[in-house]
Amino acid sequence: MLESREWYLAAYAAEGIPTSDHLKLRTVVVDIDSIPDGHVALETLFISVDPYMRTRLTGLQDGISLHQFQLNQVINGFGAGRVIRSNDSNYKEGDVVLSPFSPVAEYCVIPSGFLRKLDPTNGIPLLDYFNTLGPPGFAAWLGIEVLGDPKPGSNVFISAASGAVGLCAGQLAKIRGCRVIGSTGTDEKVKLIKEKFGYDDGFNYNKETDLDAALSKYFPNGIDVYLDNVGGKMLEAVLNHVNLHARIPLCGMISQYNKVWTEREGVRNLLNLVGKEVKMEGFIISSYLDRFEDFAKQMESYLKDGKIKSKNKINFGIERLLDSLASLFSSSNIGKVVIQVKA
Amino acid sequence: MLESREWYLAAYAAEGIPTSDHLKLRTVVVDIDSIPDGHVALETLFISVDPYMRTRLTGLQDGISLHQFQLNQVINGFGAGRVIRSNDSNYKEGDVVLSPFSPVAEYCVIPSGFLRKLDPTNGIPLLDYFNTLGPPGFAAWLGIEVLGDPKPGSNVFISAASGAVGLCAGQLAKIRGCRVIGSTGTDEKVKLIKEKFGYDDGFNYNKETDLDAALSKYFPNGIDVYLDNVGGKMLEAVLNHVNLHARIPLCGMISQYNKVWTEREGVRNLLNLVGKEVKMEGFIISSYLDRFEDFAKQMESYLKDGKIKSKNKINFGIERLLDSLASLFSSSNIGKVVIQVKA
Repeated sequence: MLESREWYLAAYAAEGIPTSDHLKLRTVVVDIDSIPDGHVALETLFISVDPYMRTRLTGLQDGISLHQFQLNQVINGFGAGRVIRSNDSNYKEGDVVLSPFSPVAEYCVIPSGFLRKLDPTNGIPLLDYFNTLGPPGFAAWLGIEVLGDPKPGSNVFISAASGAVGLCAGQLAKIRGCRVIGSTGTDEKVKLIKEKFGYDDGFNYNKETDLDAALSKYFPNGIDVYLDNVGGKMLEAVLNHVNLHARIPLCGMISQYNKVWTEREGVRNLLNLVGKEVKMEGFIISSYLDRFEDFAKQMESYLKDGKIKSKNKINFGIERLLDSLASLFSSSNIGKVVIQVKA
Repeated sequence: MLESREWYLAAYAAEGIPTSDHLKLRTVVVDIDSIPDGHVALETLFISVDPYMRTRLTGLQDGISLHQFQLNQVINGFGAGRVIRSNDSNYKEGDVVLSPFSPVAEYCVIPSGFLRKLDPTNGIPLLDYFNTLGPPGFAAWLGIEVLGDPKPGSNVFISAASGAVGLCAGQLAKIRGCRVIGSTGTDEKVKLIKEKFGYDDGFNYNKETDLDAALSKYFPNGIDVYLDNVGGKMLEAVLNHVNLHARIPLCGMISQYNKVWTEREGVRNLLNLVGKEVKMEGFIISSYLDRFEDFAKQMESYLKDGKIKSKNKINFGIERLLDSLASLFSSSNIGKVVIQVKA
């Protein structure tokens, strides 16, 4: 028997940034002495904190996700843990595993079916699996390599450019020989994407009173591919600058997650999609698992050759969930936000 | 020398339905006695009146079309004419030809490069080339067969269902074995699309105070393909009912053409495109000319087999341009609107 702290859903939050009214920490007892067949007990090492989590807390059946967290149940996310007991012969104590549905808890007993065992000898840092080799890297790869598919010389725009997806996507587009511009929320982050992550240029959307004018300045020849991570007013502004046959992979719309849909910013110029014959397409990484191996192979090779860099923001302690989640919506992070549960 | 009445652009109309302030009729003299090489003189038989024409009258570089009509110049559209003089050995007096850029005039002298000579012995009524075998039929075919591509049993929704595109698209989707629902602007037109054009059901959007509720009723299993001809509030309502991997070919957005973009209805729930991984794609028929032969072959066979029917609204006399154009925006027509210039 082990005491374990876990985050559970106390109340849905249709609007606003979730608070301790909605997500609460409690201590439960985990029975690691009678583990069911095909299950393992894990000590959690890291939990990924992602914008899509917000969309699972609304209690509504719209928007980005249909899979709402359940009231009074522990919430889950992408995580890594160390096996401390096993009732599956494929896993033994000490194995480090990834899980897409890791309880946000210090310890857990979970089915081994969705786990992926890591090879400790391959030299890949664990957090790479949360970043470039994990969900954000895969989303960036799908957005650029599969759906956006820009040609050399194309003009590529990426919003939330200093987030985990944006940092990776910008570098992938540069590898393809594109001109890449990013938007982000502070001057410091603009500097960073240009100086450390290869963006050709970027701007601070908080300082631009007129997004349309900003895009005119940064895209005198229009936009060929826009990887949308924010939605709302930025998407609207982009639609005034799209080139013929532009492609807009919709990875997420973080500016919209804290509002019920009737309160969201309406995009008024969708007619431009007709005139410019634009293709706009939403995607969810779990629908493209048949491409994961292609992605992993290419990304590992880029990492080995030093062509892709990444950045993590590590918050220590499971109690950091609420502020980690809130930080996604406040322009305060660079790169991937993770909680390190076990020091 | 011939006297000819023609419609010319006197002033752009950024908003509202164009009036005699914007489009004016004048009489000019056409010189048919010295026709340049590679030109023909035509007596106009029919002129097509289409929603996209409205978008060429704004004087703005946004929306559906970049090709604005020029001030003080005769406007043009899809038309048919009879050759009355020719300076091109491929055309002789009496030939009937189609032109995508026919001056809206009683007579004209134009280059023969874009003309298509019709075969008077093939038994196809001339107005079929304006309807099922012309731009509306091609748009419907691209929307259903190429971009929408619904499977048998799919739930297909078509707005402006009693317009030329909508009538044809509904029948094409029925041939594919889909369940097809249409929206249109009067009860009479709802009855018509169901009784004469094979729609499974339909509703009058002017009577539905809650489009969301209407779609819940008509699509208990969600929408797989939406051929959008109207945009705005209807598109927004549809996005609350899309199924996973739904496709939305954007053919036009007639509800939006009479407003400058900042005054248009914003679509607030684009986030649903992400969660449902929807593909939304604008298209213009002139970009798909490589598919025209495939289209024409299939459509001619459907017409021969009586599988596709059509309807025309013929207004007599070139002076009918303004009311013909206005009628497109007032729910007053069924099928293709044409002006018969020569009785």
